[in-house]
Amino acid sequence: MNILIQNGTILTMHDGKIIRQGAIAIEEEIIVDVGKTKELKRKYGRGYEKIDAKNKIVMPGFVNTHQHAAMSLLRGYADDLPLQEWLEKWIWPIEKHMTAHDIYLGALLTAVESIMGGTTTVNTMYHYTPEENEAKAFADAGLRGVIGHVCFSWRKEEDRKALWDLAKKWHNKEKGLIRVSVDPHAPYTVDPEYMEELKMLREALTEKYGLENAPIIWHIHVAETSDEKEKIQKAFNIQIKNGIMEYLDSLGVLNEKVVAAHCVALTDKDVKIMRKRDVKVSHNPISNLKLASGVSPIPKMLEKSITVSLGTDSPCSNNTTDIFETMKTTAILHKGINKNPTLLPAEKILEMATIKGAKALSWDKEIGSIAVGKKADLIIINLKKPHLSPLHNETSHMVYAAKSSDVETVIINGKIIMENRTLKTLKVKRVMELAEKAKNSLLKRVSANIK
Amino acid sequence: MNILIQNGTILTMHDGKIIRQGAIAIEEEIIVDVGKTKELKRKYGRGYEKIDAKNKIVMPGFVNTHQHAAMSLLRGYADDLPLQEWLEKWIWPIEKHMTAHDIYLGALLTAVESIMGGTTTVNTMYHYTPEENEAKAFADAGLRGVIGHVCFSWRKEEDRKALWDLAKKWHNKEKGLIRVSVDPHAPYTVDPEYMEELKMLREALTEKYGLENAPIIWHIHVAETSDEKEKIQKAFNIQIKNGIMEYLDSLGVLNEKVVAAHCVALTDKDVKIMRKRDVKVSHNPISNLKLASGVSPIPKMLEKSITVSLGTDSPCSNNTTDIFETMKTTAILHKGINKNPTLLPAEKILEMATIKGAKALSWDKEIGSIAVGKKADLIIINLKKPHLSPLHNETSHMVYAAKSSDVETVIINGKIIMENRTLKTLKVKRVMELAEKAKNSLLKRVSANIK
Repeated sequence: MNILIQNGTILTMHDGKIIRQGAIAIEEEIIVDVGKTKELKRKYGRGYEKIDAKNKIVMPGFVNTHQHAAMSLLRGYADDLPLQEWLEKWIWPIEKHMTAHDIYLGALLTAVESIMGGTTTVNTMYHYTPEENEAKAFADAGLRGVIGHVCFSWRKEEDRKALWDLAKKWHNKEKGLIRVSVDPHAPYTVDPEYMEELKMLREALTEKYGLENAPIIWHIHVAETSDEKEKIQKAFNIQIKNGIMEYLDSLGVLNEKVVAAHCVALTDKDVKIMRKRDVKVSHNPISNLKLASGVSPIPKMLEKSITVSLGTDSPCSNNTTDIFETMKTTAILHKGINKNPTLLPAEKILEMATIKGAKALSWDKEIGSIAVGKKADLIIINLKKPHLSPLHNETSHMVYAAKSSDVETVIINGKIIMENRTLKTLKVKRVMELAEKAKNSLLKRVSANIK
Repeated sequence: MNILIQNGTILTMHDGKIIRQGAIAIEEEIIVDVGKTKELKRKYGRGYEKIDAKNKIVMPGFVNTHQHAAMSLLRGYADDLPLQEWLEKWIWPIEKHMTAHDIYLGALLTAVESIMGGTTTVNTMYHYTPEENEAKAFADAGLRGVIGHVCFSWRKEEDRKALWDLAKKWHNKEKGLIRVSVDPHAPYTVDPEYMEELKMLREALTEKYGLENAPIIWHIHVAETSDEKEKIQKAFNIQIKNGIMEYLDSLGVLNEKVVAAHCVALTDKDVKIMRKRDVKVSHNPISNLKLASGVSPIPKMLEKSITVSLGTDSPCSNNTTDIFETMKTTAILHKGINKNPTLLPAEKILEMATIKGAKALSWDKEIGSIAVGKKADLIIINLKKPHLSPLHNETSHMVYAAKSSDVETVIINGKIIMENRTLKTLKVKRVMELAEKAKNSLLKRVSANIK
């Protein structure tokens, strides 16, 4: 299908360019032209579905670089608890009972919420189950995503099998909508040898299933809490001299294909190493605050020109998958903590949520900004809302005032996935009913097991 | 009008009571019965407009205890700047050009946004203008509010006149919807003698226009930034020994009718004094972070059982008036900063946004919880949203996952002000148009003056 979006204010996220009275022409999944409406509407007439974006913002869809999509089934199941109690008494016991179908449904619910909030790409880490899984959920919803399988030392055999199966069945599938990743859980749950093996496994999978423009990436939790170093030392009976990034670098696993989520407890040396290895960061401020992990030194990383993107983390440590919330929290948190109101201005934040997110996932040749030749992953936001009135500055409004519910239309890979807040790929009511049912049945299995 | 709300999950905010399959009967502006739907629907049949709240939360409307409602006209006008530059080069110069009509329109816009986000009471501090003002805007919108006139040492005569006029014309007016307050701007802009005079003026106004159940309160910025003590010393050539609350207490102005906004830079002794004098706190975490003021020591105050309520501050330092955002930010911020995930659990946060807010404004005999005899200030929230699915815990959902846009129906003083997201008192589109026009004209006047 061909589409002409016209009369909008286009935040291209490409060299900071804003086009007023702007238009975008889309053919199949590709952006073929970007410019003034006056010009484009002469060139793209018949055969183009017209979308009027008057009084609206058109911008790239958001890229959420850290999620565990299946976990939306546990949203609000347990909050306000000490981390270990939360994990050991609540989250892990219930997760044991999650079936492949639960994982599919949880991811489907996250996909729906993501799209309705303007997110067009999600990087998710969870247990891969061949029958039904997060990849199928994203494909069914029409959401772009990187689907990872999370690896632990205690299940190497299972992990290897899962990773080969995942890459074979899903990498660069669904017209390039779905990519896959290798996801070592964390430095304290993946031993040094296995860490190195998983690095090589990513390379082997890339060689077999990857393409130059569609690499398989590495997605890992790093330095989420201040006791992580101790946990690593205890788990593998090793001595770490300095920071965790330094330790990982000593294993030779850090490079530009690594997306490191959290990065809260870092040393200055760690930050230098990240810069040197071009490690990508997924900043998850809401989860880090809610779980009391602390505040990541984002301004330091930005000073060093490290690629910092935004993630929501799972819906049970957030408890939404809302990038608007994450943008605003990021924008205000570092100002407040560092007592400097000029840190992380709105333009930088919008970049983190779009083009930097694409860069973090090594997907920036295709997505993250509005430019000719890129895939059409776009969102249209209605400015005629009381909380967006009056209009002084669109960029400020997107970061400090806009809400998920202001997103009207979402286009992913050239396809209209949501129009005037109606999802076209799925029945939202049905997804909610299925999720509620799955949750009830899951709770029954948990309580039967506990008894 | 009489109303029967039925089949809802009622978060009463009264002793933590939650009623499932609950109902609320309203006669005129008063809640006359609260209980199970089965029972109430037999008692309140004909003559009661029925509202079905199946799959919905019914709870008290939010109380926003610190706002400058007129300033929504400046939303997004200037962000990400050093505080003094922001105030001196941007905010104050443009404010000089604001007319009484601008103040009315800004407050009208804030009232609309507040109601649409589930806020039913707003405590606002701004310049009172007799012709048109915030009180008239709130009355026109049907929003409950405390309207203050902000006082400065440099305009005592004007302030005195304004305060008497405000109290006479607006205190306890519009069926008790509007109350007024005396608002010394801050300890560094109001000299010691004037501070004492304003304390006595509040008492004199209360004697003349207040009633036992409708007191006139005091609303003041205190300890917003860490340099405030220095600013006071410099401004009035005095020496302050310890904290700012201690200084105010030495003037004899602290008591249970004081709402102190911000309270960021406090000493431990300050906190003790606040407890002793029963000073009420308005916590404004989003504004404090955005303006880089820092983080208020809320957990310390809660330990001492000080009344802590929530405020958004003005729409140009936030940039919304969204209590859902403020609740979530409050809940996660103090956990993260203090590295303790059990701090400020969801139940406490909901209290801060409702009954504690009412208590802060000395209005808790009438509003802030759902109980027989109280005024009907209620909101109904639809739980059938992807980001509120599945349902494990309503309280968690309200704090960590719900959004302004989930509020469907708002009742204030027994009147349905919004129904299924349609405002009944005002045309939202018209308010936005007027605000946009006023903003454009304001910017023209500013630039003409600068030239």
